[in-house]
Amino acid sequence: MNKFFSVEDAQNPEALVTEALQLKANPRAFEHLGKNKSICLIFFNPSLRTRLSTQRAGELLGMNVTVFNIGKEGWQLEFADGVVMNGDKAEHIKDAARVIGAYFDIIGIRSFPSLADREKDYTEEVINAFYQYAGVPIVNMESATLHPLQSLADLITIREHQGVIERPKVVLTWAPHPRALPQSVGNSFAQWMNRADVELVITNPEGYDLAPEFAGDAYVTHDQKEAFEGADFIYAKNWSSYEQYGQILSQDSRWTVDAEKMALTNNGKFMHCLPVRRNVIVADEVIDSENSLIIDQAVNRVTAAHIVLKKMLEVQG
Amino acid sequence: MNKFFSVEDAQNPEALVTEALQLKANPRAFEHLGKNKSICLIFFNPSLRTRLSTQRAGELLGMNVTVFNIGKEGWQLEFADGVVMNGDKAEHIKDAARVIGAYFDIIGIRSFPSLADREKDYTEEVINAFYQYAGVPIVNMESATLHPLQSLADLITIREHQGVIERPKVVLTWAPHPRALPQSVGNSFAQWMNRADVELVITNPEGYDLAPEFAGDAYVTHDQKEAFEGADFIYAKNWSSYEQYGQILSQDSRWTVDAEKMALTNNGKFMHCLPVRRNVIVADEVIDSENSLIIDQAVNRVTAAHIVLKKMLEVQG
Amino acid sequence: MNKFFSVEDAQNPEALVTEALQLKANPRAFEHLGKNKSICLIFFNPSLRTRLSTQRAGELLGMNVTVFNIGKEGWQLEFADGVVMNGDKAEHIKDAARVIGAYFDIIGIRSFPSLADREKDYTEEVINAFYQYAGVPIVNMESATLHPLQSLADLITIREHQGVIERPKVVLTWAPHPRALPQSVGNSFAQWMNRADVELVITNPEGYDLAPEFAGDAYVTHDQKEAFEGADFIYAKNWSSYEQYGQILSQDSRWTVDAEKMALTNNGKFMHCLPVRRNVIVADEVIDSENSLIIDQAVNRVTAAHIVLKKMLEVQG
Repeated sequence: MNKFFSVEDAQNPEALVTEALQLKANPRAFEHLGKNKSICLIFFNPSLRTRLSTQRAGELLGMNVTVFNIGKEGWQLEFADGVVMNGDKAEHIKDAARVIGAYFDIIGIRSFPSLADREKDYTEEVINAFYQYAGVPIVNMESATLHPLQSLADLITIREHQGVIERPKVVLTWAPHPRALPQSVGNSFAQWMNRADVELVITNPEGYDLAPEFAGDAYVTHDQKEAFEGADFIYAKNWSSYEQYGQILSQDSRWTVDAEKMALTNNGKFMHCLPVRRNVIVADEVIDSENSLIIDQAVNRVTAAHIVLKKMLEVQG
Repeated sequence: MNKFFSVEDAQNPEALVTEALQLKANPRAFEHLGKNKSICLIFFNPSLRTRLSTQRAGELLGMNVTVFNIGKEGWQLEFADGVVMNGDKAEHIKDAARVIGAYFDIIGIRSFPSLADREKDYTEEVINAFYQYAGVPIVNMESATLHPLQSLADLITIREHQGVIERPKVVLTWAPHPRALPQSVGNSFAQWMNRADVELVITNPEGYDLAPEFAGDAYVTHDQKEAFEGADFIYAKNWSSYEQYGQILSQDSRWTVDAEKMALTNNGKFMHCLPVRRNVIVADEVIDSENSLIIDQAVNRVTAAHIVLKKMLEVQG
Repeated sequence: MNKFFSVEDAQNPEALVTEALQLKANPRAFEHLGKNKSICLIFFNPSLRTRLSTQRAGELLGMNVTVFNIGKEGWQLEFADGVVMNGDKAEHIKDAARVIGAYFDIIGIRSFPSLADREKDYTEEVINAFYQYAGVPIVNMESATLHPLQSLADLITIREHQGVIERPKVVLTWAPHPRALPQSVGNSFAQWMNRADVELVITNPEGYDLAPEFAGDAYVTHDQKEAFEGADFIYAKNWSSYEQYGQILSQDSRWTVDAEKMALTNNGKFMHCLPVRRNVIVADEVIDSENSLIIDQAVNRVTAAHIVLKKMLEVQG
């Protein structure tokens, strides 16, 4: 595996999950694979789970892990070609990426969207530029539009908890939030579920439909209750509008996931990627219930990073 | 040892010191104990000695050590239960602590007090919440009211330098400072000395008496010179008022520790936890004298963290 | 080697380059030399290459590497002696350096100049104070006036690319930049080239002459084209004025290095330490040409740090 940007790089998502679960059962099995190998985790934005879980995964493989908060410890990068760089960007991505690629065997990148320019955000210029110039495998640690390590962890979690249900009904529901958030988790979850053996339903207020290339064949409804009926998994997440790009069109608390709505489901499990605004996205009664899988998802972030890094190391030999 | 929050967790402080000194003499003796174990050092506030010494201690035990500046690299945490989280706190401590506890074998926490709300600060909500939710041993790396790794290092230092004196007279003296500082070092030192085989005297201006639960049975005097007479160890530290909580009531330079005052002691040793404001807390002539133990104390911060982490690892097996 | 502050500490720069190239060919040869040894890399200022390359070098030697952003994760340090420290500096360098020196086997320091007080900057008080008090070897990771790891990497790069040319003509050319930058890279490059077997020419606008102690015997001309004629290596760099200290006297884009000027050279190679302002310092056509050595230089930063740390570890035994 030379890049992990989206479900496309997973080839067979279900097979990847199976392999990930084997690794989880025997986490030290490949601790010599990363000996003398190094990874640099580059953060343009804050992170808790991604930072710590990817670091742990690298350590489980015996790698040297370097965390670099590029904006705070380094400087701003220029991404446009041919620019006269007399502004506030001190280095061009071409040069920075080639250098970091020369120092490390694998690079992880977290880079959020501007939420100001949809076309630009959806070109994924940051992560693509690193891939173009660095010359080493690149892991998406949440880019402008996708968060595949999260979605892989989510699919692993669903497989661990679906029990006897053969083809679970999985509902991705928008929920309110006081800040304008990226669409990346929603996009990515939809993209992965479209490739998994599940029935995907997406529910959100009008104006909040996800980009068609990620929503895919999912059934989309603006009626949250309809969506919840008989669901096996409820995945809550806020995102800002894709249509009126980056805008907050609603903070309607009627979209908060509570026990009453969960009662409509098939004893459904509750999922969220964290961090979560309690009693805004979801009521305490739901997130603290036995059906809440949030910690399982977070634990599986290590497993997701573990299998992805393992596959990248195997390619390098 | 499942937590190290105060002298209470040390059970037998003098025995802990004895064991710590054995470890100091043979620092690589347990370097396999931490193999495949990981610790996350979480900083809500700046740190130099605590950060570096705890990191070194973890490495001496063969652990993977991760440093996480949670406020700068992550986000703000909510501690109140049942809150509608639509403000500036992005994640609840319940969720963050459970996740970090799932990723790491031990967690260290540095979290200073607000100095605005005494009752709240003295409940130690941050460190207690991590202990409640993380499910792994927690090390206090200076909390709102206590700094036990410092006090253990201080007691180790006293035992190394008391020579033939059987029950040394130890004086904790307030000294001036331009900023409002926590009471934690003073509280903690008093708490440990009350449990050690020493004669403890505390001296401070009126209005600066420490909380009774930590001052304990110490003799408290507002006459600094009386306190210094015949002292074997002078421990200088500033703290803001406990009574008029968080206030600076005095910056009186007559409380600065100088050579004239040290002349009243029994060839007393000078101690301070660092960082120290020279010529405000203590005159250069004292801190640079042969009787100054400040570097010994700092070196023993590694030893203190070393023995505490060793005891936590032993419990985990 | 107990310090690496300038070319003076290299004793024989050409021999050091030869040894560095041997190490580059066999980078894991000394991975046991740093076992149980630790280095603390202290940053008063941002860094990308220096941070990552020195970290990699330490890991190649098997060391524990700690990165400490002292201003952001710790606090401000006082450097003046005898001061009443009641301002914004929380700790004296004497105390901080002695403590860090007690915790680590080697210390690296990055500390930029103020560009406000030439006399003070050129005393190199920060790095000298660490050397005076820490009691362990100190590596200059770019100080107020010099950047010897960069210059060593540059000399390694020149030796790798001079081919059959016995005594290459090396031109250090000033180039425009929108911000006031230190003279350190220019000073240091000049100092090293004066000690290497090359013909050094320095070209810059009037008012930009480097400090005489570093420019040394180089031929200095204000005519950039004259300088470029027949050059084998063009080393571009901006610096603020030494004479009118810290000032920007020119942003004249006629000093930008472009293909027309490179055509005057002897098929000259282009060098820059990075980060570089493209189309301000140098045109894309030059930096992206086959004659550009910028990535080679960056890669050799690991080699430079590698040989320097190896020599420091050998002294310690």
